[in-house]
Amino acid sequence: MNRIVLIIEYDGTNYVGWQIQPNGIAVQQVIGNALKKITGENITLHASGRTDSGVHARAQTAHFDTESRIPAEKFAFALNTYLPPDIRIKASLEMPREGEAEFHARFSVQKKYYRYRVLNSRHASAFSRSTALHVHTPLSIEKLNAAAELFIGTHDFAAFKAAGSKAETTVRTIFLSRWSRDGDCIVYDVAGSGFLYNMVRIMVGTMLRIGQSSDDISKLRHALECPHRENAGDTAPAHGLTLWRIEYPEFDTEDLLLRNFLI
Amino acid sequence: MNRIVLIIEYDGTNYVGWQIQPNGIAVQQVIGNALKKITGENITLHASGRTDSGVHARAQTAHFDTESRIPAEKFAFALNTYLPPDIRIKASLEMPREGEAEFHARFSVQKKYYRYRVLNSRHASAFSRSTALHVHTPLSIEKLNAAAELFIGTHDFAAFKAAGSKAETTVRTIFLSRWSRDGDCIVYDVAGSGFLYNMVRIMVGTMLRIGQSSDDISKLRHALECPHRENAGDTAPAHGLTLWRIEYPEFDTEDLLLRNFLI
Repeated sequence: MNRIVLIIEYDGTNYVGWQIQPNGIAVQQVIGNALKKITGENITLHASGRTDSGVHARAQTAHFDTESRIPAEKFAFALNTYLPPDIRIKASLEMPREGEAEFHARFSVQKKYYRYRVLNSRHASAFSRSTALHVHTPLSIEKLNAAAELFIGTHDFAAFKAAGSKAETTVRTIFLSRWSRDGDCIVYDVAGSGFLYNMVRIMVGTMLRIGQSSDDISKLRHALECPHRENAGDTAPAHGLTLWRIEYPEFDTEDLLLRNFLI
Repeated sequence: MNRIVLIIEYDGTNYVGWQIQPNGIAVQQVIGNALKKITGENITLHASGRTDSGVHARAQTAHFDTESRIPAEKFAFALNTYLPPDIRIKASLEMPREGEAEFHARFSVQKKYYRYRVLNSRHASAFSRSTALHVHTPLSIEKLNAAAELFIGTHDFAAFKAAGSKAETTVRTIFLSRWSRDGDCIVYDVAGSGFLYNMVRIMVGTMLRIGQSSDDISKLRHALECPHRENAGDTAPAHGLTLWRIEYPEFDTEDLLLRNFLI
């Protein structure tokens, strides 16, 4: 048996998310079906984590075990011939499946990066309509960044967790939390050891009200000090969010994506 | 009667192009139907020029005449409530319809800019799949730019004109012709007084073969000196092309787009 790792990009618009659900098509399922065609095996994919319906991925990472003798790096090319154009494998590689060096796409994660994209303009865009949230009231990037800074460090994020989340502890560490410009949009980049269910979207929803001057920054301070869901803001829509990058002890998805470019 | 000008962004993926065709839905038609709902009038839209099936626009410009008393700048907001999300009006303004100062979206054009987007990578992208051409053989940006430079100036572009084009003269002047990087893609920006049918796509198709070292740059020199269609390269696919910007004596679409941003 070989353990193969896939770096996966997907436009989440037409999927119910990563994980198989009764109400639509999941990304996991589409890739599983393509792997069945290639290997003849019923393959279970283990991802770094789920993404919700409508959330995108630039570097989702998943592993599977196979008896197939196809060279690891060929899986990306083979899968892309079977997958729809809104799911692309950007790299495939082999990793150890036994012993001390065993790699696991979920348990080996060191750092996860998300990006949330906002178009702050009078009129929406035909091009970013499924990858950026359109906000038509003026935002202040200074206020957004004053709020974003408060997330850095180790906090109890219970106020930023969707009801029904079953995490054992709600304490998480945030390494990066920053708004910046990217073309026509402003983007929020956040990196952490891990995230609770809907955590990034609730963080963004809370910051956007501060950025629009509808809420004072003290509201966010309060939500971090008194960690109850009602102290944070709304959950920002799924379509602005992209799973951006994952760091493992063995590799950084960023380096693998760079190798994809020819120019 | 008032003459209203619209600055229009569209994702051309789901349309047969700007102009009404028997085989599908045209952008012109969708906006015409929305104008009918708003004004009750049967309105004829005059655009800066057609775009082909699958070609996008960031700043298509069109005018129409109406008896409606709706303030000019309100048309953008009113139309966007009726239009599908892949067509957005970015600005609307009034321009003179009579006398010396008469504005015409087509006849008043001074300079037109197009951008052609290429993703040069091993694997295609889920995100740019409908807005960039994926090229999986290595390109040289130096070779692309050596070719692009040859287009600058006034030339007979008969070799870069689709069969069936009825232009009276095939001489055109190119002001800007340059490849550069833009995020994950490389982009070709070209500006001219006007373009023949399929001209930009044939120019790009010809340059891509030079950039891949399949053709020598002397092939392009020959096509400009001996202007016959067979001397130029293939027509690059429509989906990489975007009508980018238009300069009129009265305004530049770039300035109008900038006013749309709130941050």
